[in-house]
Amino acid sequence: MLLLSAVMAGMGWAEGMAQESFKPAWSNVPGCEYPQVSEGMSVRVRLKAPEATKVEVAGGDGFCKEPLALTKDTEGYWSGVVTQVTPGFHYYWFLVDGVQVNDPSSVTYWGYGHPTSGVYAPTPGEDFYACKQVPHGQVREHWYFSEVTGKWRRAYVYTPAGYDTDTQTKYPILYLLHGAGENERGWSLQGRMNFILDNLIAEGKAVPMIVVMDNGQAVAKGDSTQPDMSREGLTKRTETLEQVYLKDILPTFESYYRVKPGRENRAIAGLSMGGFQTFQIGLNHTELFSYYGAFSAALIGGVMDNPSTAFNGAFADAAKFNREVKLFWFGVGSEEKMFVDMVTDARKKLSDLGIRTSYYQSENTYHEWHTWSRCLHEFAPLLFK
Amino acid sequence: MLLLSAVMAGMGWAEGMAQESFKPAWSNVPGCEYPQVSEGMSVRVRLKAPEATKVEVAGGDGFCKEPLALTKDTEGYWSGVVTQVTPGFHYYWFLVDGVQVNDPSSVTYWGYGHPTSGVYAPTPGEDFYACKQVPHGQVREHWYFSEVTGKWRRAYVYTPAGYDTDTQTKYPILYLLHGAGENERGWSLQGRMNFILDNLIAEGKAVPMIVVMDNGQAVAKGDSTQPDMSREGLTKRTETLEQVYLKDILPTFESYYRVKPGRENRAIAGLSMGGFQTFQIGLNHTELFSYYGAFSAALIGGVMDNPSTAFNGAFADAAKFNREVKLFWFGVGSEEKMFVDMVTDARKKLSDLGIRTSYYQSENTYHEWHTWSRCLHEFAPLLFK
Repeated sequence: MLLLSAVMAGMGWAEGMAQESFKPAWSNVPGCEYPQVSEGMSVRVRLKAPEATKVEVAGGDGFCKEPLALTKDTEGYWSGVVTQVTPGFHYYWFLVDGVQVNDPSSVTYWGYGHPTSGVYAPTPGEDFYACKQVPHGQVREHWYFSEVTGKWRRAYVYTPAGYDTDTQTKYPILYLLHGAGENERGWSLQGRMNFILDNLIAEGKAVPMIVVMDNGQAVAKGDSTQPDMSREGLTKRTETLEQVYLKDILPTFESYYRVKPGRENRAIAGLSMGGFQTFQIGLNHTELFSYYGAFSAALIGGVMDNPSTAFNGAFADAAKFNREVKLFWFGVGSEEKMFVDMVTDARKKLSDLGIRTSYYQSENTYHEWHTWSRCLHEFAPLLFK
Repeated sequence: MLLLSAVMAGMGWAEGMAQESFKPAWSNVPGCEYPQVSEGMSVRVRLKAPEATKVEVAGGDGFCKEPLALTKDTEGYWSGVVTQVTPGFHYYWFLVDGVQVNDPSSVTYWGYGHPTSGVYAPTPGEDFYACKQVPHGQVREHWYFSEVTGKWRRAYVYTPAGYDTDTQTKYPILYLLHGAGENERGWSLQGRMNFILDNLIAEGKAVPMIVVMDNGQAVAKGDSTQPDMSREGLTKRTETLEQVYLKDILPTFESYYRVKPGRENRAIAGLSMGGFQTFQIGLNHTELFSYYGAFSAALIGGVMDNPSTAFNGAFADAAKFNREVKLFWFGVGSEEKMFVDMVTDARKKLSDLGIRTSYYQSENTYHEWHTWSRCLHEFAPLLFK
């Protein structure tokens, strides 16, 4: 009887899984039934590949880091269920006989340096990034010529609702940087920054602001375009990007748009590599920026080895720093241990110097976009107040 | 001796092929070496798939309509050369053991209803769509609520250079429609409409104008979202889109942007399905539009069976039509025979009624984006003059 109960319980569980309500992800190609997402945070994927001998699915850390083998039905469809998916947006892909390919049923996003499939696994009640019945800002594709790189560059610029109707109001400005492997469209596409800000502004929680999202790669005019991944190479590229910000981006965008003058109206924030660049560009120029956001910042390359002398001595006088820097904010996902450790170490060193920082931890998320969307949602209300 | 010459000539030709200068396409993912394009209009593709048993490449009509089998080298790379590629942009994809997949080395574009790889094969001297050293307009992502569909919709809007700096000037407006399988971003991404207009305006060849690019699909509030591909279903959808234009799009965009009033400042044009919709929406409302562009228009479903009574009798009074409609323009690619025939037939019928039309033929292009980019380049200078 005990055994029977156990078997029935087991069956019940199996049936429960089978009957779990799966719905097509809202991020799918219109009309496509897969991937499907359940309320229990499982994702069912499917691919037609009758002639393939092996098909797997894999993706971001919070989705399916280790490839999961799919099973084939009689019609040639390979399918499987990824369980215990963490909240929010995840990159994913198939491995068809070993070749990494995107899902034709998914919109592709720029991730890991290539177009990559993505799926949203929403958590009940968490809708801060949804397109709601509120006034919407715009995201503009803005081409500008960079004297530093000698090339035309594409930035995306968010202008808040009302920007075009009231042509006198000036706005503070946030420079928002993406990560390695992403590009300048990441924040507005998978990061949903425009909807996050639209909602915060409509609720009166954030000040209307302009947001500039540029590309995080820059090669100085005449330099080799071949990536040099040595420490010197990375340092040089960051220095070039710093020059692009100083000589091209700030002058271009702050004269083109109606931007309030002065460092008290200027913020900089970035994720992962963009967090590193926020340090390098922003902290080297505390005369320019008052608000700093480091989302899962990649504080690598010894950048925090000697904080008392780093960044042109920004931290040397803690009282001055705390007075002038309105916000020095760190955000990180609870499950991205390496970054939690890096940030904890950096904040400890800063605290030892008397530097004041803020900290936010996104629960149950990894080094993925949902961490960063949540970071922006927490960070933006603190700006320009 | 004759034989030897022939053999040598043959060798020379083969060597010429081998030595033909291939360069990475500028549309590649940054840093990726393939696909490569030659001046002789060949494209070499490559994919690493050591475990696959068969890899092919295929693509748009002017690229590689019939799948081409690739050959595998000892390192597991499959490669091949597509020859006699026609000018401009082409969609393409791989078939890996029968599964259609995109090229991880290519940016993806929305084509055939899914993310699809693409490559540009430029022709010497044809640079009307290049990003040049001229003032650039912007392309804005504009979300608006549609009362007809009961949903938020995304449009892309081109505002010409100077729109933000001189806040008094008003502009004429062009509604530019995409084809079936494309979406609202197609014209500004693969169609490069912003660069085409930037260049034309900078050269003084086109009048500065605002361009609205909306999605060509619309389902009325309460209707099934399942595609009904019957003639009745298609008719209903086009009627819904017509209502979206009348009740949502025109009022929304012409009040939001600084648009010159009146039908003499309003144009409508579209490609393929968007050409059909240009007829259905535009010709049903000659009181609203003065300029019409039909690019490779899909004049299907008997739309031109009874022209004298069609479109609310728009063609019934030819003298009136010719007086009021400033431009009724058809463009088509020389190699898309079915569309050449459809357009020829339509223009014959119109001519028989005394209706004046204009015609442009893009040489050596198929039912692909280069036909439509060239069409826009020819059409835009004729507007609002």
